[in-house]
Amino acid sequence: MKGIRKIAPYIPGTQPNISGMIKINTNENPYPPSPKVSEILKNFKADKLKLYSSLDNQPLKEALAAKHNVLPEQLMIGNGSDEVLAFCFLAFFNSGDPILFPDITYGFYKVWADLFSIPFKEIPLNENFEIDFSDYNQINGGLIITNPNAPTGLFKTKNEIRELLKNHSDVIVILDEAYIEFAEDSMTSLLDEFPNLIIIHTLSKSQSLAGLRIGYAMGNPEYIAILESVKSSFNPYSVDMLAEALATAAIQDSEYYQKITGKICQTRDWFSQKIEESGFRSLPSQTNFVLISHDKVKMNELFQYLEEKNIFVRYFTKPERLKKFLRISIGTEEEMKRVAAVLANFVSK
Amino acid sequence: MKGIRKIAPYIPGTQPNISGMIKINTNENPYPPSPKVSEILKNFKADKLKLYSSLDNQPLKEALAAKHNVLPEQLMIGNGSDEVLAFCFLAFFNSGDPILFPDITYGFYKVWADLFSIPFKEIPLNENFEIDFSDYNQINGGLIITNPNAPTGLFKTKNEIRELLKNHSDVIVILDEAYIEFAEDSMTSLLDEFPNLIIIHTLSKSQSLAGLRIGYAMGNPEYIAILESVKSSFNPYSVDMLAEALATAAIQDSEYYQKITGKICQTRDWFSQKIEESGFRSLPSQTNFVLISHDKVKMNELFQYLEEKNIFVRYFTKPERLKKFLRISIGTEEEMKRVAAVLANFVSK
Repeated sequence: MKGIRKIAPYIPGTQPNISGMIKINTNENPYPPSPKVSEILKNFKADKLKLYSSLDNQPLKEALAAKHNVLPEQLMIGNGSDEVLAFCFLAFFNSGDPILFPDITYGFYKVWADLFSIPFKEIPLNENFEIDFSDYNQINGGLIITNPNAPTGLFKTKNEIRELLKNHSDVIVILDEAYIEFAEDSMTSLLDEFPNLIIIHTLSKSQSLAGLRIGYAMGNPEYIAILESVKSSFNPYSVDMLAEALATAAIQDSEYYQKITGKICQTRDWFSQKIEESGFRSLPSQTNFVLISHDKVKMNELFQYLEEKNIFVRYFTKPERLKKFLRISIGTEEEMKRVAAVLANFVSK
Repeated sequence: MKGIRKIAPYIPGTQPNISGMIKINTNENPYPPSPKVSEILKNFKADKLKLYSSLDNQPLKEALAAKHNVLPEQLMIGNGSDEVLAFCFLAFFNSGDPILFPDITYGFYKVWADLFSIPFKEIPLNENFEIDFSDYNQINGGLIITNPNAPTGLFKTKNEIRELLKNHSDVIVILDEAYIEFAEDSMTSLLDEFPNLIIIHTLSKSQSLAGLRIGYAMGNPEYIAILESVKSSFNPYSVDMLAEALATAAIQDSEYYQKITGKICQTRDWFSQKIEESGFRSLPSQTNFVLISHDKVKMNELFQYLEEKNIFVRYFTKPERLKKFLRISIGTEEEMKRVAAVLANFVSK
């Protein structure tokens, strides 16, 4: 057969669904979405679904514009930040020079680069698992940086990002801020200063809407228009009518989300300290997960032990130096107390 | 700025939303989705949305497999048939030879070919606006045929399609059956016989779920696996949890949909005959729309006249020979009675 793409068969990750499990493997939010989301859902008339959704997502754009103090023309909305990022790769990384990203970061950047035949170079994190921006001073076709980075949880400050944007003013720099609401500060205030900056957010983590699929890009109107054109050339209606309505309700209820985000950060900091009692260490995280290690523990064994107790966490086998870690998403206080106890129990054996 | 894609700025189509309007411009279904969809929606707990949706869409695949008498492994589900088609272009059209499709057909095929730099050739419909498959006997990298075709509404029989599949056994032949439930017969029964056949369906038209975004591909498991890999390399969770639940409910209520599909076909046939009284002709449609013409009427003028009466239909300015037509989606009986009367009125002036 002619024309069939050569592509590695994909082995889907498992999304376990066991009653009583503690699911802390994919950085989901342990708290439900805002009660306002429930309310809109309950009152949504199914009859409306017979018509196509709006092409412009105006109500959601207005809610997001108010939240981030940007203009609606600075926003492009898609089916999860994965779709938005895929469109960004198609829209902005066409120079032929390699794009740069860390060797330890969101695993999907490499997959999109492969899919679209975009050359790329992975820049190793330093020995403290930090991104060292001086390593990026080389010819490139664009940058993509997760901030805070995943799965390390480490955050780059506004001054460091400003410097980076200045040094790479001839290419698009994408900041993937998937976990930013658990961190010090978003870089949205740099948008006016740097036209080469594109910031990506998702409602999957901080807004407890992983099952709904809403992500968005913010940037200067000229480049956002290019991004909209790519979306319109691929799947113009990818944000469905229901998802848009529920996402808008979520964004408008900032009070609720501040509350649950605060709780998660508190639990994260408590958990990081607590597990030190059993000899675990964790990188200083500004996300809703922690990357933990232990001098005397084989992480693949701990991973299996946890799974037997119906506690699902994430163990990375690649790259090599991640094998010394487990990534643990932050659940509720009760869940994390139990996890800390199980970790202590494993070490004491 | 380096690396920015050169792409025509997209001018979004309008989706009018005026109280009392007759919206028959985008082939939506005039009837609401199944009451079972409403029921599932009303009882859906928003709390579930905090988790990612299933990666495998198993419940929906099982419902569709039962409906079409295929195996779940023969199905790939995406965010509307637009996304599924875009993935098909990436998965199956990589030979370097031009893919072939009619010059008058779904306008998006050309857009995807452009976006992914796939060479293509548009084969003119014959003077009766029919696809002549003998024109496709030339070197090609794959075929994509809408059946029934849009915006003509004309249907190719199973014998003609079987012949086509035999003549092009070295490439993938995609049949876009977006309107098939309003036609004689789907080609799903040919799937076992022809491994090169991929069939695309959507829930936007016949299932009254345009606002929800569900489409799917059916084919042989080997090629469906390639398609799944492409999806997983682009946006693995593009089918959200709510959309999957509602779509499954719709597919399980075949009785309701047979009823409304029957009504639409009846109204279509009545309308086609009725407007002949005012001198209009229409191509024999097996879809939920008709393409109408009139020897003495300038269609752009009629289009505007209808718009003034809050009746929204579709007028194509390209290619040239479509300017003699209007495409009218089939609404409710009452709506089409009114439209027929307005058409008669325009002619009599």
